[in-house]
Amino acid sequence: MQLGMVGLGRMGANIVRRLIRAGHSCVVHDTNPEAGKALAAEGAVNATSLAALVDTLSAPRAVWIMLPAGTVTENTIAELAALLAPGDTIIDGGNTYWKDDIRRAQALAAKCLAYLDVGTSGGVWGLERGYCLMIGGDKDAADRLDPIFSALAPGRGAIPATRHRGEAHASTAERGYLHCGPSGAGHYVKMIHNGIEYGMMQAFAEGFDILRNAGSERLPAEQRYDLALADIAEVWRRGSVVTSWLLDLTAEALAEDGALTGFSGHVDDSGEGRWTVEAAVEQATPAEVLTSALYTRFRSRQDHTFAEKVLSAMRKGFGGHQEPKKTA
Amino acid sequence: MQLGMVGLGRMGANIVRRLIRAGHSCVVHDTNPEAGKALAAEGAVNATSLAALVDTLSAPRAVWIMLPAGTVTENTIAELAALLAPGDTIIDGGNTYWKDDIRRAQALAAKCLAYLDVGTSGGVWGLERGYCLMIGGDKDAADRLDPIFSALAPGRGAIPATRHRGEAHASTAERGYLHCGPSGAGHYVKMIHNGIEYGMMQAFAEGFDILRNAGSERLPAEQRYDLALADIAEVWRRGSVVTSWLLDLTAEALAEDGALTGFSGHVDDSGEGRWTVEAAVEQATPAEVLTSALYTRFRSRQDHTFAEKVLSAMRKGFGGHQEPKKTA
Amino acid sequence: MQLGMVGLGRMGANIVRRLIRAGHSCVVHDTNPEAGKALAAEGAVNATSLAALVDTLSAPRAVWIMLPAGTVTENTIAELAALLAPGDTIIDGGNTYWKDDIRRAQALAAKCLAYLDVGTSGGVWGLERGYCLMIGGDKDAADRLDPIFSALAPGRGAIPATRHRGEAHASTAERGYLHCGPSGAGHYVKMIHNGIEYGMMQAFAEGFDILRNAGSERLPAEQRYDLALADIAEVWRRGSVVTSWLLDLTAEALAEDGALTGFSGHVDDSGEGRWTVEAAVEQATPAEVLTSALYTRFRSRQDHTFAEKVLSAMRKGFGGHQEPKKTA
Amino acid sequence: MQLGMVGLGRMGANIVRRLIRAGHSCVVHDTNPEAGKALAAEGAVNATSLAALVDTLSAPRAVWIMLPAGTVTENTIAELAALLAPGDTIIDGGNTYWKDDIRRAQALAAKCLAYLDVGTSGGVWGLERGYCLMIGGDKDAADRLDPIFSALAPGRGAIPATRHRGEAHASTAERGYLHCGPSGAGHYVKMIHNGIEYGMMQAFAEGFDILRNAGSERLPAEQRYDLALADIAEVWRRGSVVTSWLLDLTAEALAEDGALTGFSGHVDDSGEGRWTVEAAVEQATPAEVLTSALYTRFRSRQDHTFAEKVLSAMRKGFGGHQEPKKTA
Repeated sequence: MQLGMVGLGRMGANIVRRLIRAGHSCVVHDTNPEAGKALAAEGAVNATSLAALVDTLSAPRAVWIMLPAGTVTENTIAELAALLAPGDTIIDGGNTYWKDDIRRAQALAAKCLAYLDVGTSGGVWGLERGYCLMIGGDKDAADRLDPIFSALAPGRGAIPATRHRGEAHASTAERGYLHCGPSGAGHYVKMIHNGIEYGMMQAFAEGFDILRNAGSERLPAEQRYDLALADIAEVWRRGSVVTSWLLDLTAEALAEDGALTGFSGHVDDSGEGRWTVEAAVEQATPAEVLTSALYTRFRSRQDHTFAEKVLSAMRKGFGGHQEPKKTA
Repeated sequence: MQLGMVGLGRMGANIVRRLIRAGHSCVVHDTNPEAGKALAAEGAVNATSLAALVDTLSAPRAVWIMLPAGTVTENTIAELAALLAPGDTIIDGGNTYWKDDIRRAQALAAKCLAYLDVGTSGGVWGLERGYCLMIGGDKDAADRLDPIFSALAPGRGAIPATRHRGEAHASTAERGYLHCGPSGAGHYVKMIHNGIEYGMMQAFAEGFDILRNAGSERLPAEQRYDLALADIAEVWRRGSVVTSWLLDLTAEALAEDGALTGFSGHVDDSGEGRWTVEAAVEQATPAEVLTSALYTRFRSRQDHTFAEKVLSAMRKGFGGHQEPKKTA
Repeated sequence: MQLGMVGLGRMGANIVRRLIRAGHSCVVHDTNPEAGKALAAEGAVNATSLAALVDTLSAPRAVWIMLPAGTVTENTIAELAALLAPGDTIIDGGNTYWKDDIRRAQALAAKCLAYLDVGTSGGVWGLERGYCLMIGGDKDAADRLDPIFSALAPGRGAIPATRHRGEAHASTAERGYLHCGPSGAGHYVKMIHNGIEYGMMQAFAEGFDILRNAGSERLPAEQRYDLALADIAEVWRRGSVVTSWLLDLTAEALAEDGALTGFSGHVDDSGEGRWTVEAAVEQATPAEVLTSALYTRFRSRQDHTFAEKVLSAMRKGFGGHQEPKKTA
Repeated sequence: MQLGMVGLGRMGANIVRRLIRAGHSCVVHDTNPEAGKALAAEGAVNATSLAALVDTLSAPRAVWIMLPAGTVTENTIAELAALLAPGDTIIDGGNTYWKDDIRRAQALAAKCLAYLDVGTSGGVWGLERGYCLMIGGDKDAADRLDPIFSALAPGRGAIPATRHRGEAHASTAERGYLHCGPSGAGHYVKMIHNGIEYGMMQAFAEGFDILRNAGSERLPAEQRYDLALADIAEVWRRGSVVTSWLLDLTAEALAEDGALTGFSGHVDDSGEGRWTVEAAVEQATPAEVLTSALYTRFRSRQDHTFAEKVLSAMRKGFGGHQEPKKTA
């Protein structure tokens, strides 16, 4: 099958590579011409402009946008929409805000263009492991592109079938891709995926923090442990309840350096974590853990919050307390 | 190798079975005589009393206690201590509080008895998957009992080796058991394992709650999704960042009943979650997520907290607000 | 001075009363004609339509809208805007979302109408105590209406001056009203005020919950206290650090009924608490306490969250655990 | 009435001063002889040793200990217990752990010594405002010492009576001191007071943090506010729902320096905050806000948590993400 790909960063380029390996043909474009040339050497057709990309593809066309969410993606879609013909499909594989999908799909439908929002998980590992795809939007378009999604997804692999999933449940979910619902549903499900990811990461992070501080000199000497974090992460990889890919990655990082000295502790966050909190608040769903995980990241990027200074000021006010030195 | 087992509930009985399958010999005892007889039929030697169990074992003896943490375990250890001989070893495989281990080990050492605290993860799946074992206490005793731990643990299995773990890192951790440190260290590491488990579970729980409420009638009609939770859990099992055993179990439960109608939502907690918070507070380690996960369970077992009534009373006081009806 | 008032619910009516008592003249309107008649009996001029209200007022007119935030307020402002003349001022005293203020002010400015957003705190007590007013928007309009704001605000009262506020700091803030900044700033400051209010309320609520549960039969008998909550609230009213109006209200409610049996524990939330979280997330400011206070209210309105059922399902999956009965 | 005071730090010395002003007589002792001499100049009798203090007092003696909680207090009480006679009373006015009170009271009762635990709130302001006293232990001893407590407490002052407190409710609580229950109850109630204090402080701290960050350059220019925090704190002091002593103190600190540049943001915590969390966990009472307020302080004293480095390590692992620079 044929696919156009716009945006050849690590994600876009690897998606193209995985498709080519599966026998599909890709027409690619990037504002950086070198990126397109590199993929041409691997079997893709390089288009030097969006117009050229559209011209090269046969109708009904399908163009996958893999660009930073926001203005860049927005503008590219607008430009493409002017070039494409009724019956063509635009796929946004980036980390777009789901309400933007709803708005866009509506606007594109007026031009008889289909729009699919595809939450794409897999990161740097996707080329080899496959991408977990959460798809929203026009079901017919999604069905037509099934060969693409099927090739990108991990497939069943060695992962055992889930008990209780009988015939009735047979779905592409078991091969790692899923049409989740109407426009926005793909990015919505991906958003929550990332929200959960934040929470799980924070659970591990706090746990290892306590394990490391178990040796703190502020504790009574007879209640201290000098624990080998790398070995603990490793032992949990087999037979424990917290077995997970995130644990595997933690075990790897700790095996490389048990003190993680290469990291400063400034932790970024992407839109999904914030939108998850927003979605929870809009629904009135309590989401303590997902929210705390986000706030930890906010806090990690500051030396001190103003809030902490307010606390110190109050303590001085009512108790004459002086601020302590930092303890760690 | 020979092991005595006291306490033949599901965990104790399955540990015996796994040892027998591996060719070890077990002398067993339970206050319920039927439990011992049942295991005798599977190859264990049943002892009708602790004294008989001690008599039947050859020195140096090793007796594994698999009983509810607290008074029962405490009393059994005291009774055993009076029967055993110098050089013998007591293993507490239950969910004991780590500071109790430190105290006990000290008391038993005065009688030349070794004491090992073994955090045991694996639940109902341990018999087949093996038990992840976190061991604290006398290193010599732990080394002597290596064949037992090795047989109980899952072994390397199909799980890929962790990158960066070279020769230097070679450890039993890679086969699913680990001597973590002096007395209490085994239960300490198990405690934090469970704390992390609580956090991860809560992350999934909140995420699926938001996904389910995405269809709430209180949301604008054009921003609602009726999502197939079982399929979403399934699709994440392949190639996503949240891949984990807990996700596998969630997928299974949702495949059986996507509305989880069989569950009321009252959620129990065991000591480990609480002790994790205590340990964090003693260390001055912030642990928002692990603590919130615990508090959610506290809240789940009440119709309403008194705190909520205080809120309503204040709202009436300053604003004359009437209480709303519940919304879900 | 002359003011038009649209919306004669408890807040609107009491604002009119406080203005009349201060010697100002009010032209009032409500869709319910009885409300206007009642105030006419107290000295206001009743207008049977918005057009009549506008006609009755002398230019430059000032019309205060005191209606539920959202569609009703939006529509009323649109209708008024068509009736008013350049130089007139619209005041929104309700709980409007601050970004709506920015949008509206811009639209009204195009018609040479001034717009003020006024966060109004005081609830059922405002008539007697005065209203704390947080004002945003056109500074000239705010200055022109100073007599109105001054009359509504509590004034200096018996509250001691704040140390360090010298001449340089002299501001209307010391009399209970403040121009906070451009459009939206008034409602923004009111929003955060309510966010803080939620957090303080939750702090008291949790504290009294722990005090009440200090007598729980699940605690060891020698570590239980049967505490007189009403007396504790009362004793804190003098000389303690938690002295506050919210404590006064709590003391009053507990004096009436120490068990608060008249309250179910379903707790409502208004937009401000949610928007506070949104603002924090947009800024990347960690706001654990303000957010938790909101989530507690979300939780209070449900019998059980789906999240809790997910937890139970996982616990059954890995440990065969049965759900407990509720404990309180 | 006569009282012995051991420990003449700021709190102890001011308590003595307030008692002397009320016409009581005080015998004082401190390991630093200068402290005792200074108070002798103000009318106290200085005792150069505990033995001398006991000798100087008439039976039945009452000795108030105002020392740092923990070992110092513990040892002083042991020493005093050996010197005192049956019928005498020891008062611990420090921030002692309530379970220590239970243990001590029992030990002292065996010697026919009464023990009172008195949670004392008021800080540097107590001398003038009076101390809010929460008393636990022997009711007879507490009644005998009523003149002392009455003199130390703030009294009714200008604070209006609480509605619904009729004759039936008449209690010393209305004058700022209260016998809360058996041994430990005084410190228990003080502990929760401080727990609430932490939560309220954090609510204000977060609120002002958001107000300050409302001007952040990371926000869209048209949605930014440059807010005068000192004036906002001031305006809330009159007629708003968040009126409180903590707000007064915040207003004062912001009036002195709206940027709080004199504070680093390292915030200490005392035992009460931690014990509050412990009490909540022991009871299974959810206490999100009180706990988050504590964790914020833990976090404030570190440059980075190890948890944050674990997050960064995972992010690099699955996504190749580099750490960001700090943002504030």
